[in-house]
Amino acid sequence: MKIVPLADRVVIKAEQAEETTKGGIILTGSAKEKPQVAVVVAVGPGGMVDGNEVKMTLKVGDRVIAAKYAGTEVKVDGEECQIVRQSDILATVE
Amino acid sequence: MKIVPLADRVVIKAEQAEETTKGGIILTGSAKEKPQVAVVVAVGPGGMVDGNEVKMTLKVGDRVIAAKYAGTEVKVDGEECQIVRQSDILATVE
Amino acid sequence: MKIVPLADRVVIKAEQAEETTKGGIILTGSAKEKPQVAVVVAVGPGGMVDGNEVKMTLKVGDRVIAAKYAGTEVKVDGEECQIVRQSDILATVE
Amino acid sequence: MKIVPLADRVVIKAEQAEETTKGGIILTGSAKEKPQVAVVVAVGPGGMVDGNEVKMTLKVGDRVIAAKYAGTEVKVDGEECQIVRQSDILATVE
Amino acid sequence: MKIVPLADRVVIKAEQAEETTKGGIILTGSAKEKPQVAVVVAVGPGGMVDGNEVKMTLKVGDRVIAAKYAGTEVKVDGEECQIVRQSDILATVE
Amino acid sequence: MKIVPLADRVVIKAEQAEETTKGGIILTGSAKEKPQVAVVVAVGPGGMVDGNEVKMTLKVGDRVIAAKYAGTEVKVDGEECQIVRQSDILATVE
Amino acid sequence: MKIVPLADRVVIKAEQAEETTKGGIILTGSAKEKPQVAVVVAVGPGGMVDGNEVKMTLKVGDRVIAAKYAGTEVKVDGEECQIVRQSDILATVE
Repeated sequence: MKIVPLADRVVIKAEQAEETTKGGIILTGSAKEKPQVAVVVAVGPGGMVDGNEVKMTLKVGDRVIAAKYAGTEVKVDGEECQIVRQSDILATVE
Repeated sequence: MKIVPLADRVVIKAEQAEETTKGGIILTGSAKEKPQVAVVVAVGPGGMVDGNEVKMTLKVGDRVIAAKYAGTEVKVDGEECQIVRQSDILATVE
Repeated sequence: MKIVPLADRVVIKAEQAEETTKGGIILTGSAKEKPQVAVVVAVGPGGMVDGNEVKMTLKVGDRVIAAKYAGTEVKVDGEECQIVRQSDILATVE
Repeated sequence: MKIVPLADRVVIKAEQAEETTKGGIILTGSAKEKPQVAVVVAVGPGGMVDGNEVKMTLKVGDRVIAAKYAGTEVKVDGEECQIVRQSDILATVE
Repeated sequence: MKIVPLADRVVIKAEQAEETTKGGIILTGSAKEKPQVAVVVAVGPGGMVDGNEVKMTLKVGDRVIAAKYAGTEVKVDGEECQIVRQSDILATVE
Repeated sequence: MKIVPLADRVVIKAEQAEETTKGGIILTGSAKEKPQVAVVVAVGPGGMVDGNEVKMTLKVGDRVIAAKYAGTEVKVDGEECQIVRQSDILATVE
Repeated sequence: MKIVPLADRVVIKAEQAEETTKGGIILTGSAKEKPQVAVVVAVGPGGMVDGNEVKMTLKVGDRVIAAKYAGTEVKVDGEECQIVRQSDILATVE
């Protein structure tokens, strides 16, 4: 299954949070700090959005930080992704 | 009964959620995970919406993911559909 | 009494909900499913609304589906009607 | 005392609700159904409102239906009136 | 102390509410009906407000009715005044 | 430490509230009426704000009244100041 | 890890709050007054934001005061930063 985002949207997938603390304790569920960095897996075509022309500057593979609570979570082939507007991406990470 | 959406709206119908789990248990009501993919069954003509020209890019048969809580649920000949704005469609699925 | 809607408004009247179930039980009050289809009984002239030119595309007799909770309920000669903006009409029904 | 509404506002006065039911019972306070039809008693000059040019189409004597909860109630010489924007008038009644 | 309102603001001062009822009872505090008519005591210069050019049409001495809960109450030399936008003045009174 | 406000912002400092009532009682904390008049201590450069050109009309030393709850409180060298938009300044006081 | 903010965003890092009171008491957690001054550590490219051209005026190293509750907190190499829009920066500090 391949997701093709519309308009100014991008699909991002969270990077794996580390499951072991520095001291070697294995973390479960809520004890894991939710990772903040995600990878862009698909980019929409841009175009007119609410009367403004939007140009897409992100590309597949970019590592990004998205605004909290932005977008919609979807499951693609069992993997959790998030569809967000490009304007909800705060920064890229190098 | 045929629904003809107005302006920038489309009518979508959720794909059937699987009613049996992998282990063979039959799921009832709330235990079924609500399907995220829907099929476009009718597309409005587009045009001026809130002062902006909207061009319809979706077409009948497209498999799409809509924003949660978007639009209005209607029953057409006993089948549940949803009327949403094209801008509430997040992505198409191939 | 004749209602003449202003600007981009239309007056709609709900179609009668069926008062008997398939099994022959007579339904009272809240047990009746509220009908979703309404008939347009009057159409405003359109024109400038919030700085945007609105052209009326609906006409008297159109069967329509309106957004839930949209508009204002009025009683015209004892019959319940609803005055809604054309933009709150989601679709026509054929 | 004469009220002269500013900009796109009109002053309306509710028509008298009937104080006797068909069966002859005299109604008091909350039992009376609030009348929905009001009469326009003064009309503002229109002009620029929030950056949009507004032309007044209502005139004194028009019988109108206003959106619920719109505007501000005022007492003019002991009589209750309401000052509303023209855009809050849903329809005229003939 | 003289207040000079900025932009599209005016300073208004409520007219005295009558402190005696028709029957001669002296009213205290909350029993007095708050007066609705105020007098304009200062008018701002108008100009660009939120990107729209605003022309002041009110002048000092105008008796006006303001929208409820509009503006900010200030005390000028011990007297309560209210600073409101001209667009919150609903009508003048003659 | 010197604060240089950005865009259409100004820094204001409340004038001292009187700490003694007319009858000679010394007021503490919440009993003191919060002063409404503040002095402008710094003015931003103006310029484009939300797509509108803003020209600064206030200058350092102006005594002003600001809208309640507007802006952000900051401590500069131990003294409480407030950073507000020029549009939140209601009036100047002479 | 290097954060590159997008559009009109900047990354800021709070200056260290003093951990000892004047009397020599060591402060823990909530007793420390949160510092108001932050340092700009990265600046986005500006450009079209919501249909308006935004020019970046801040630069790396600027000491700034940001609006409370603005932006998103992120951890970069274990250090807490905040990504905010340039319009949420109220003032620079010299």
